Amino acid sequence: MADNRAQDLLSRRYRVMGHHTPLFYEKPLHLVRGEGVWLWDNEGNRYLDAYNNVPHVGHCHPRVVEALSRQAGTLNIHTRYLHNNIVDYLERLTSTFDEGLQMAMLTCTGSEANELALRMARFCTGGQGVIVTDFAYHGNTEAVSEIGTAFMPEAKTTRRVKAFPIPDSYRPLDGLGGEPLAQAYADRVQQAIDAFHAEGMNVAGILVCPDFANEGLLNVPPGFLEKAVTKVRQAGGVFIADEVQAGFGRSGRHFWAHQWYDVTPDIVTMGKPMGNGHPLAGVVARPDMIEAFSRESMYFNTFGGTPVSCAVGIAVLDAIEEDNLMQNAVTTGAYVADGLRRLQQKHELIGDVRELGMFFGVELVRDRKAKTPASTESRRIINLMRDKGVLVSTIGVHDAILKVRPPMPFQPGHADILLKALDEALTQVASEGSV
Amino acid sequence: MADNRAQDLLSRRYRVMGHHTPLFYEKPLHLVRGEGVWLWDNEGNRYLDAYNNVPHVGHCHPRVVEALSRQAGTLNIHTRYLHNNIVDYLERLTSTFDEGLQMAMLTCTGSEANELALRMARFCTGGQGVIVTDFAYHGNTEAVSEIGTAFMPEAKTTRRVKAFPIPDSYRPLDGLGGEPLAQAYADRVQQAIDAFHAEGMNVAGILVCPDFANEGLLNVPPGFLEKAVTKVRQAGGVFIADEVQAGFGRSGRHFWAHQWYDVTPDIVTMGKPMGNGHPLAGVVARPDMIEAFSRESMYFNTFGGTPVSCAVGIAVLDAIEEDNLMQNAVTTGAYVADGLRRLQQKHELIGDVRELGMFFGVELVRDRKAKTPASTESRRIINLMRDKGVLVSTIGVHDAILKVRPPMPFQPGHADILLKALDEALTQVASEGSV
Repeated sequence: MADNRAQDLLSRRYRVMGHHTPLFYEKPLHLVRGEGVWLWDNEGNRYLDAYNNVPHVGHCHPRVVEALSRQAGTLNIHTRYLHNNIVDYLERLTSTFDEGLQMAMLTCTGSEANELALRMARFCTGGQGVIVTDFAYHGNTEAVSEIGTAFMPEAKTTRRVKAFPIPDSYRPLDGLGGEPLAQAYADRVQQAIDAFHAEGMNVAGILVCPDFANEGLLNVPPGFLEKAVTKVRQAGGVFIADEVQAGFGRSGRHFWAHQWYDVTPDIVTMGKPMGNGHPLAGVVARPDMIEAFSRESMYFNTFGGTPVSCAVGIAVLDAIEEDNLMQNAVTTGAYVADGLRRLQQKHELIGDVRELGMFFGVELVRDRKAKTPASTESRRIINLMRDKGVLVSTIGVHDAILKVRPPMPFQPGHADILLKALDEALTQVASEGSV
Repeated sequence: MADNRAQDLLSRRYRVMGHHTPLFYEKPLHLVRGEGVWLWDNEGNRYLDAYNNVPHVGHCHPRVVEALSRQAGTLNIHTRYLHNNIVDYLERLTSTFDEGLQMAMLTCTGSEANELALRMARFCTGGQGVIVTDFAYHGNTEAVSEIGTAFMPEAKTTRRVKAFPIPDSYRPLDGLGGEPLAQAYADRVQQAIDAFHAEGMNVAGILVCPDFANEGLLNVPPGFLEKAVTKVRQAGGVFIADEVQAGFGRSGRHFWAHQWYDVTPDIVTMGKPMGNGHPLAGVVARPDMIEAFSRESMYFNTFGGTPVSCAVGIAVLDAIEEDNLMQNAVTTGAYVADGLRRLQQKHELIGDVRELGMFFGVELVRDRKAKTPASTESRRIINLMRDKGVLVSTIGVHDAILKVRPPMPFQPGHADILLKALDEALTQVASEGSV
């Protein structure tokens, strides 16, 4: 009966949305309620959310819902009039950045933020060439799809984008390590620059997620990014840090993931967790770039930076502070990572465990020496875990890396539930044999 | 004191947002509250909103605020899980369209909707060339800026866009009228097609606002659009109707402005009024196009079609029905138009009055014969009206057309206030003499 309802809903969904909209799990989840790190389906089953980063401070956080509701009932209007909220919010937001990044433009989505960053970089440098990794995804508009080397159609035909190999120290280039590995990847960035120049195109910049999240939450060879950015800047380009997934304290020690590196971006884009689900995103950049670009473009975003969006943004910043979520990302993050490493001791399938605050990548391999990606197994595991009431997903070139990225209020007790479910799923997959 | 506060806020805004973000009025308005068709500033002054179409069913409509708050407190999640709201909403939304337009994709902004429409048109036709008017604005992303012939930097350099003269019957091409005028404009569309072909580029489509709103809410020569679309389709392109401003019953008799014409679009984009200020936008299109595009693109929009956005979308549709807003657009719209025409009898400055439901364009000219655009005067008038407590703005090639586009609950009593303020402002500008 309940299953029929889900099936009916799915059929109706196909009819109005088509058959190709992304949907999680072999047996799609029909959700009806969320609170903190928990979600409930239409049959009353509870799920531990160890995947969703958009509900950053927790599903339906009362402070955020209250700020949203109060402001929506008071005034919601665009930024062609003055309002306190946007100024208060942007002062607060830019205070989390290094000196030199003290001006902002608000949008509604990460795609719009990356669009704006690309437009600004191209406008200010006069270059068109953009350098990204060879397994990048940064959003869904045309120009952003061009840099979507992971699978976007526009990336296959554009001449404005060149890719370098993902800076992975688990599967290192030429079997190198340490400083030579960092240098080897940076040399590949230089090759991209040279290739643009050979084709008569100037370089606008390099755009990467500082976590290299979609690439598999890589352990980047230390020094690589600094070297790469230096080369890009020497070529006249800028450094765009896509913090859409990485930002807002998820990495624990720093508010922004780029702050783990010894280089300050020219432009930073942000989105997903920014409004805890409310469509809020934006760009923080060098004031000279924003001034130059805005003078020419008359950029205006009807829903960007409304009093409601900014009230929500402020509430999210408040919740991160008041709920001590960055400290929690450090401590609970370490607890989760320890647990994952214990599972690695026990389960041959776990090739590598990587973490950054409250973000974890568990790379599954069929053979630890050959590092053969265990894609089928990882798909099986996330479906088994769903049935056990724990939500995670996969990422990476081969979709063989478990992506564990829970709401920030995730506690050690939740970690125990996650680890137990993963342990059981790994045991079951091992018992089922190679697939 | 209060003025100092607005000045302080402006200085702080410049510091975090730069000096070039669009801002209305010589003396910017600092707003704090909205309700129905009314807005209040930080000094307690009340303003009649005769401009904003985003608060479509009225500022802070209780039904919309309640739906937003309730769903935000229950569950806000992306569409990779099943949820009733998006299916319920899209069934209801697509029911307002002609047969053949029964599938939809949701985004957060009109720019994203137009991006998606362009990607889809280019993907499905294999063409790159897009035809727009020579004074078009459709949003702020790169590909959408390319079609922003009104002032966007990217429009100046792209080779993928060609423009035809705005199909204006007030300033008609070659002084023609009636059927020959419609034919003359359609011939200009054919010239654009031919020019693309001469350059070896196939045509993806024509994209216009069916109201030609930014162009000045034109009275389009009857038959023009049908002829133009036929030519584009013969060349293998599609018809994209940008209903971001025009849709959701504003034109009174029809829910969609394209329904005034005798041609059905292949793709329709929508946004602004869709969520009454909540960032909700989307594309309704031919199912075969959505299926073909989605299969290849894996299009996903994190904040598009969340349970919260769809709850808001449903509440807006409810409010349009329950508050009889389309009927009101017909009756109050006619009342406003009559009043504007009476003012035209009295004031030489009014060259033309155009209306479509609850949307009005008042074209100001220094000389009714020569039709010299009264740009300075129109700027003066909107500032004078602001001081009188009535908000309107300007549009058109010369910014000499008053844009009057109030929230849909606008009543005859509000119209009287608007008309009185406009009458006084016109009198004052006339007394000040030519500027």
